[in-house]
Amino acid sequence: MITIETFVRFLDLGGTFVFALSGAVAAVNRRLDVFGILVLAFVTGNVGGITRDLLIGAVPPAALTDSLYLLVSVVAGLVTFSWYAGVDRLRTPVLLFDAAGLSFFAIAGAQKAVEFGLSPVSAALLGMLTGIGGGMLRDVLIAEIPQVLRSDLYAVAALAGASTVVIGNMAGLPYGVSAVAGGVLCFGLRFMAIRHRWHLPTAHLSANARAEADPSNDEKPH
Amino acid sequence: MITIETFVRFLDLGGTFVFALSGAVAAVNRRLDVFGILVLAFVTGNVGGITRDLLIGAVPPAALTDSLYLLVSVVAGLVTFSWYAGVDRLRTPVLLFDAAGLSFFAIAGAQKAVEFGLSPVSAALLGMLTGIGGGMLRDVLIAEIPQVLRSDLYAVAALAGASTVVIGNMAGLPYGVSAVAGGVLCFGLRFMAIRHRWHLPTAHLSANARAEADPSNDEKPH
Amino acid sequence: MITIETFVRFLDLGGTFVFALSGAVAAVNRRLDVFGILVLAFVTGNVGGITRDLLIGAVPPAALTDSLYLLVSVVAGLVTFSWYAGVDRLRTPVLLFDAAGLSFFAIAGAQKAVEFGLSPVSAALLGMLTGIGGGMLRDVLIAEIPQVLRSDLYAVAALAGASTVVIGNMAGLPYGVSAVAGGVLCFGLRFMAIRHRWHLPTAHLSANARAEADPSNDEKPH
Repeated sequence: MITIETFVRFLDLGGTFVFALSGAVAAVNRRLDVFGILVLAFVTGNVGGITRDLLIGAVPPAALTDSLYLLVSVVAGLVTFSWYAGVDRLRTPVLLFDAAGLSFFAIAGAQKAVEFGLSPVSAALLGMLTGIGGGMLRDVLIAEIPQVLRSDLYAVAALAGASTVVIGNMAGLPYGVSAVAGGVLCFGLRFMAIRHRWHLPTAHLSANARAEADPSNDEKPH
Repeated sequence: MITIETFVRFLDLGGTFVFALSGAVAAVNRRLDVFGILVLAFVTGNVGGITRDLLIGAVPPAALTDSLYLLVSVVAGLVTFSWYAGVDRLRTPVLLFDAAGLSFFAIAGAQKAVEFGLSPVSAALLGMLTGIGGGMLRDVLIAEIPQVLRSDLYAVAALAGASTVVIGNMAGLPYGVSAVAGGVLCFGLRFMAIRHRWHLPTAHLSANARAEADPSNDEKPH
Repeated sequence: MITIETFVRFLDLGGTFVFALSGAVAAVNRRLDVFGILVLAFVTGNVGGITRDLLIGAVPPAALTDSLYLLVSVVAGLVTFSWYAGVDRLRTPVLLFDAAGLSFFAIAGAQKAVEFGLSPVSAALLGMLTGIGGGMLRDVLIAEIPQVLRSDLYAVAALAGASTVVIGNMAGLPYGVSAVAGGVLCFGLRFMAIRHRWHLPTAHLSANARAEADPSNDEKPH
């Protein structure tokens, strides 16, 4: 008999594994040593959930008290370390797994925030943060602007999935139903964005403004 | 009848709006998409207060439970997205608004820390952190050294304003009085620093040391 | 009569001082102003412990409630600001002090996590995090990939020291004994790594994979 808790935990662990893979691949590409690979795998797989837990007051965070999260991250790191070529060749599957991981995290994160009594808007935001937080810190640690800030409906998909769970919850639907709906929506949006190169618009700059809008422009105003 | 709580909340929301503007401008200059702009607006406007709330144990943080903070950040992001040229042309006014936001955050942050029973020194530091935290994470997310670490009495002004509130509190002054004094001090310092290009000193390096002091020099000692 | 609490606090303050020195040196090398130097000194010396305290729910963190941590960090920053050439010439001693600081932090961090009832695995990880967290944020703030992710058994030494404390605790040894053993192990590993340029392996890439494994490669999968 599978309870909701078991189901949420399974989703979380699955998401952790695929996110940890993406962190490990980034670490190998930066020539980090094996320990750096493991750290980046753990960070990418767990920091989204850890941040959510800090913000809702669920300390110590599940990623620290439940050793399976660490184990899953370490396995992902070691697999990448040992068979980088293999993992890297799996780029398309990894993208799909990553979309699955994002869906898992977004719906599990939103549900946990709801259970801790947060408002619907906050719970949806925290679901999104659970999905994107790990990848953001991964990119910060390799000194790059986070991918999630500029591509492919990534955060939007997470927010859509998380919002579905929250709305389902408000409508009194069983969690299983809204989780599946939210997961399908998040995965579907992300899948279509990858496949059809969907992008969100960037700000429209006049030719004039474009000449001016070099990065140094925002250095003066804080 | 305006209570202290209403007043503090109003200051906080005003500060959030101008900080969110500066985050959105930085995002547009990096060509982030509209969602990246909204995220950077929210981060810049709210992370200082969120960090303060985490450190004093006020979870979930006000920026998550009170939807007005999100609304104000999203409006600032959308305004910048839609009228970037207009917002960017307002650089000098934005600098002044930013100084006002810094003052709001520093005094409101210090007051909240005092109310949570922190020591005077800690409360002053937390007031400063509330003021500078959002801008620091904004710069980290666009992969740059935070402006606040190298310019124009920014953090010093925040610390001066926060300290004034704390000292006024210890002296038994009504909050309104010390808040106004702290705000004027912070805003005034920042205004003078912008106008007269005041800078804090950097370390004096001998010609010899200067040749050596390239960034790679600190790579060996951790 | 020295109690365990006094001893742990002394270790913590000693570690804070040497870590703050390394943060201040990095800030001077980036030409930050005196306030930026102080901020980076405080961050490097205290963020590891602050993060640990957030994660175990010990808020407000000791680094904020106990003003000695601030004082020690400020002194380290001012010393570096005033005598940069002197501090920089002490590179080898600073490396040794840094190894000592790492040992202090790792064993004190692990012990505090044990006292807060965390599981052995979590406590060992938190000890390591206490040791490496400050240096990681220091490098993030100067927009670089953290040193600790790619060099010289740094995090491994911290993990070994922290694990020794945790294992000693499970075996019922007095804290003094396991702290000394863990500290010697951590310091010794780090000392040997510096002296003999020990490195951990990086992932083996075929010639083919190496050509492909440029940093842009991980940009597509999140």
